[in-house]
Amino acid sequence: MARMLNVELEQLEAKVHRKLESGDLEGLRTLLTAQHPVDIAEIVERVDDDDERLRIFDLLPLELAAEVLHEMGAHATRELIDDLPSDQVGDLLDSLPMDDVSEILTEDVPERQDELLALMEPDDAAEVQDLLQYPPNSAGRFMTEKYARVTGNLTAAETIEYLRKIDSQVETVSDLYVINGDRRLQGVVSLRQVVTAPPQTRLSDIMITQVVSVLPETDQEEVARLVARYDFLAIPVVLPDGRMLGIVTVDDVIDILVQETTEDIMRFSGVEGGSTMDQPYFTLPIFTVIRRRFGWLLLLFLAETLTGSVLRLFEGELSQVVALSFFIPLLIGTGGNTGAQTVSTIIRGLALKEIRLRDTARVIGRELGSGLLLGLALGFVGVTRTILWGQDLHFALVIGLSLMVICTWANTIGSLIPLIAHRFKIDPAVVSAPLITTLVDATGLAIYFLIAKILLGL
Amino acid sequence: MARMLNVELEQLEAKVHRKLESGDLEGLRTLLTAQHPVDIAEIVERVDDDDERLRIFDLLPLELAAEVLHEMGAHATRELIDDLPSDQVGDLLDSLPMDDVSEILTEDVPERQDELLALMEPDDAAEVQDLLQYPPNSAGRFMTEKYARVTGNLTAAETIEYLRKIDSQVETVSDLYVINGDRRLQGVVSLRQVVTAPPQTRLSDIMITQVVSVLPETDQEEVARLVARYDFLAIPVVLPDGRMLGIVTVDDVIDILVQETTEDIMRFSGVEGGSTMDQPYFTLPIFTVIRRRFGWLLLLFLAETLTGSVLRLFEGELSQVVALSFFIPLLIGTGGNTGAQTVSTIIRGLALKEIRLRDTARVIGRELGSGLLLGLALGFVGVTRTILWGQDLHFALVIGLSLMVICTWANTIGSLIPLIAHRFKIDPAVVSAPLITTLVDATGLAIYFLIAKILLGL
Repeated sequence: MARMLNVELEQLEAKVHRKLESGDLEGLRTLLTAQHPVDIAEIVERVDDDDERLRIFDLLPLELAAEVLHEMGAHATRELIDDLPSDQVGDLLDSLPMDDVSEILTEDVPERQDELLALMEPDDAAEVQDLLQYPPNSAGRFMTEKYARVTGNLTAAETIEYLRKIDSQVETVSDLYVINGDRRLQGVVSLRQVVTAPPQTRLSDIMITQVVSVLPETDQEEVARLVARYDFLAIPVVLPDGRMLGIVTVDDVIDILVQETTEDIMRFSGVEGGSTMDQPYFTLPIFTVIRRRFGWLLLLFLAETLTGSVLRLFEGELSQVVALSFFIPLLIGTGGNTGAQTVSTIIRGLALKEIRLRDTARVIGRELGSGLLLGLALGFVGVTRTILWGQDLHFALVIGLSLMVICTWANTIGSLIPLIAHRFKIDPAVVSAPLITTLVDATGLAIYFLIAKILLGL
Repeated sequence: MARMLNVELEQLEAKVHRKLESGDLEGLRTLLTAQHPVDIAEIVERVDDDDERLRIFDLLPLELAAEVLHEMGAHATRELIDDLPSDQVGDLLDSLPMDDVSEILTEDVPERQDELLALMEPDDAAEVQDLLQYPPNSAGRFMTEKYARVTGNLTAAETIEYLRKIDSQVETVSDLYVINGDRRLQGVVSLRQVVTAPPQTRLSDIMITQVVSVLPETDQEEVARLVARYDFLAIPVVLPDGRMLGIVTVDDVIDILVQETTEDIMRFSGVEGGSTMDQPYFTLPIFTVIRRRFGWLLLLFLAETLTGSVLRLFEGELSQVVALSFFIPLLIGTGGNTGAQTVSTIIRGLALKEIRLRDTARVIGRELGSGLLLGLALGFVGVTRTILWGQDLHFALVIGLSLMVICTWANTIGSLIPLIAHRFKIDPAVVSAPLITTLVDATGLAIYFLIAKILLGL
């Protein structure tokens, strides 16, 4: 019942080091080959010394070593590929499923693609090149050609016999794909159905013919959405003419989802995505980083100059009461924070389908209410803080009232913008957070100075 | 080769409405029962008229209706449960897997838990209550007790025979769990192994005995992490004494990951999580919302009062040159935006393990460089904009230089904070984004006024 927790991983790591130091390489090999490739990858990655890392890696049988290479992080994979002799790298890549090789060549060592392909067996290299022709982040890049092909006239008993033969050549047998002579997909039958059907049943009688499939060009997000929606273990990749190319398996979909999470956070803070999104931190050229970030920053910068115009409008009031400017960052900061909270709440509601477009009025009513309550609470704190800062009650009331109105306003706008984006089928995460902050900054200032002008009689 | 795209779903929806209008209920039933429950759920949800929705739902056979109910969004599930006669609700819940019932009772209709449990068969209700005793978002809440139990002395051939018998009673047969007399987990064997092994092989000879498992109390994030790490199709839930309670399947893990994505965005914008996080938008009482949001807002508010202190420090300069205050929101806004971009980039790098703690110096060097370049570019735009606003070159240089220094500073701080959080094992998404904005606001103002003081000779 071993669970590989962090503690156990550290114990394993200590054991590995003891065996290395005592020179017990045979014992080390036995220890390592009993572990899961993911765990070995983590141990290898944690080794700081390049030489020691190579020594551990050299102990692993070729197949296992290849799996470990695939499981390692981008940076460690790069280092290891740089350090290993090139014929060994070729052998390792040849032993991996070709979709994993395509992943390594795209994400980990993009600048050495051609060189590494030349080290591989021509057949394998050609297969990888086939995958690399598809757009980045498309189903074609993730699919494996090693799926279980069967013909519809096989019986359940014959299928089981046949699976014993092809077992080593396919990645998964959870779903079997019924293919005709020219590789066109006829239907899908699950291993479960095959095993539990009477032995003489023909596959054509139990297969599902309404198969959900994707094109090789389909974006990874759409692939993940379909697999999540229908609880699939794999989804076939099929050409428009019906010929089947491969499958994307659920473990790849999970990797995609983990990647998407962090992409959404990046989009949410205004870093543009695009095809460079999948490149790891250290391999992305710094000018590409600048390009991806500058567009948004410039747009926000230009929008933010609006605040300057608002302030110029109230130049007279500002020179009369300099203390008014002390509270500018506080007021627009609070507005921005409140707005960002609402935006993310609504984005979540939309993503989990808890909120539908027809709920728009209810959502806005609700956010208006909670904005008012939050504004009341913060306004109270604001009044207290302003008095403690030595301003009079009159001035403190300006700050308190402004906080209340700005919070309510930010909350309302913060719920409206993602709903509008959703209505026009724009991903709300892209447009909402920085946009709302900028909007709230300018309008919040106008609210503040109008209240000040009236209450202070400027 | 039907792919259920949005277009096709709309066509299906139109067909459903035509059949409803023409009163062809038998045709409608045939049409619906050929569809996937997820698609039916979406059709039912899109129907605005309560009565029409009930009529469609009533056509479905009980088992299918229950699956459709489970696939519907929280809001629609609530409405449907409210509209249906209570004995029908009881039957529907009885037909679902009990982990799905526990999900509905927790997430969709939390306020009617006891009442709905009373409508169910006592056995089923007891099973659901067992699940509900585990903490929200724990493995116990997601597990199914309908896993495939086998004994180690079965042969592969006998196992296949046995699976035919228990097929209808289990949720998945991808993995078979070898259990001894007192329900202790001995090992796991995959259906693939069983099918491809020689028929007389005993399960005890091919099972894996080092089984990765979780406790019923294990948090859903940890469950998802383990399934993603080891590419599992299911993970067993086991008590500390080795007794097995159930399994969490990969489709539940995918749902968890989708949920976590939106949670991360919420944390990133300062909405606190906790056990209320899993409650849907409309069912969460408004005072709980306020409580979850007020803490962060207050903390940020208090931190933001620092900016006021900075401004008071430069009161003299501000009253000498009122135009200085026009640029306050622009400068701190740009600093905040730049910092947020860096934070999200680093969080992604850490999450995907592209960045390790030992890379700290390299990361900071890189971000300092790109901050300088971004600052130069924005500084140039800033100088131009300031001159266009009618300020002199001298003043424009103050703005340009301030932008450059603030961008560089925000970028550096924005890379440092998530690294520090990671070092102390705090989720960087929780602390970083609003914190950096506030920090950059106060320090950015100080930078601005110091530069102004020196360059303008105030």
